[in-house]
Amino acid sequence: MTIEVCFTPKLFPDITTKENFIVVLADILRATTSICAAFQNGVKEILPVASLEEAREMKLKGFLVASEQDGKKLDWADFGNSAFNFTTEAIGGRTLVYCTTNGTRAIEIAKSAEKIAMGAFVNLSALAEWLVKENKNVVILCSGWKNKFCIEDSLFAGALTAKLLNYPGYTTCCDSAQASMDLWKVASVDLLSYLEKAAHRHRLKKLGLDDVIPYSFSTDTTRVVPVYENGVIRDLG
Amino acid sequence: MTIEVCFTPKLFPDITTKENFIVVLADILRATTSICAAFQNGVKEILPVASLEEAREMKLKGFLVASEQDGKKLDWADFGNSAFNFTTEAIGGRTLVYCTTNGTRAIEIAKSAEKIAMGAFVNLSALAEWLVKENKNVVILCSGWKNKFCIEDSLFAGALTAKLLNYPGYTTCCDSAQASMDLWKVASVDLLSYLEKAAHRHRLKKLGLDDVIPYSFSTDTTRVVPVYENGVIRDLG
Repeated sequence: MTIEVCFTPKLFPDITTKENFIVVLADILRATTSICAAFQNGVKEILPVASLEEAREMKLKGFLVASEQDGKKLDWADFGNSAFNFTTEAIGGRTLVYCTTNGTRAIEIAKSAEKIAMGAFVNLSALAEWLVKENKNVVILCSGWKNKFCIEDSLFAGALTAKLLNYPGYTTCCDSAQASMDLWKVASVDLLSYLEKAAHRHRLKKLGLDDVIPYSFSTDTTRVVPVYENGVIRDLG
Repeated sequence: MTIEVCFTPKLFPDITTKENFIVVLADILRATTSICAAFQNGVKEILPVASLEEAREMKLKGFLVASEQDGKKLDWADFGNSAFNFTTEAIGGRTLVYCTTNGTRAIEIAKSAEKIAMGAFVNLSALAEWLVKENKNVVILCSGWKNKFCIEDSLFAGALTAKLLNYPGYTTCCDSAQASMDLWKVASVDLLSYLEKAAHRHRLKKLGLDDVIPYSFSTDTTRVVPVYENGVIRDLG
């Protein structure tokens, strides 16, 4: 099985892996981390929507809606996309509609894959074990930031690639997988200091939203594996 | 002044730097390295063309033409794009028409910039000094491989970014510049072994074209600074 890393959704149409693959979507700050938190706290299912208009329509239909733009909660939404919003009291047993600047658009782009798994540091090992059981090629899609490379998603791609290579039968097929693993090796020595370099962290800081940073970079705090299939994200972990 | 790194031409429309900038094009294996070699060996000027059709027309008009596709010389062309083709005997004082899979297409894409400088390890210091004199923002555009991230161009981006940051007045404005510098730091300890990892090196090996590898990764063997302006590349070094 091959592991391919795609640094931004804009490059997804050019991936080498053409069949029999699962996409792992990484939007560490913050969609995929928050989705893991929501399942950890008992959300029943998540309906990702790509546009604010759809999110608003769903709100009018009575759904709980999480929606943000450029990191900020929209005033008509129930939640932004901080992992801390999704408490058991707020979302336990409920269906949540979810719309984010990068994350849910990346799902739209990756829909050609059979399944799209939500990857984050918080579910790294559970996700790797699930992927191994699925026994398919893996494409790690970094959601990036406005079509640009972003460091935290790429570090996650490196961490997951390195973990999968510990299992027999995996190989990498692109320079970006190799580069991600090298960056992860450099960064993992002291992840939080390394992340001081990341532009997106500074954007969140400006917005006063960086309270989730330590949580987002904690490894293996949950066993959930949220997977998108046929329009719905459910926990297959 | 800001330094931005763009990992593939497909991401160029999304760069943050909007004005007063010079693009440095990097296609280490092999267009920008070969263009440096051609100027070092006395070519008068180079006319880059983006399509094989244009290259062929120019050949019929009597120009010397270098043209390759996927790393292989086309049979009707005078040269492929190996740096070793461009000897003083072959190209000294002449005008050369040049068409490559990645490199000249990247020039097309970057045409919005006033000037596009050709960057390679072989002219790293001369290029950095020229950029400092020009006193503008810098966007390093990696030509990549078929829209994908490629490691050797990104390493060059890291080497150039690190060098420019030694001069006062420069700052980086993107995660990709930071990642490039980190990769360069890891790789520069033993560049040729590191490059064993690079997918493109393996492609060239398969084609029997890897004779230029040691040359392509030698630093500062020339003082030329080939710059594209108004359709023509000339040495401004």
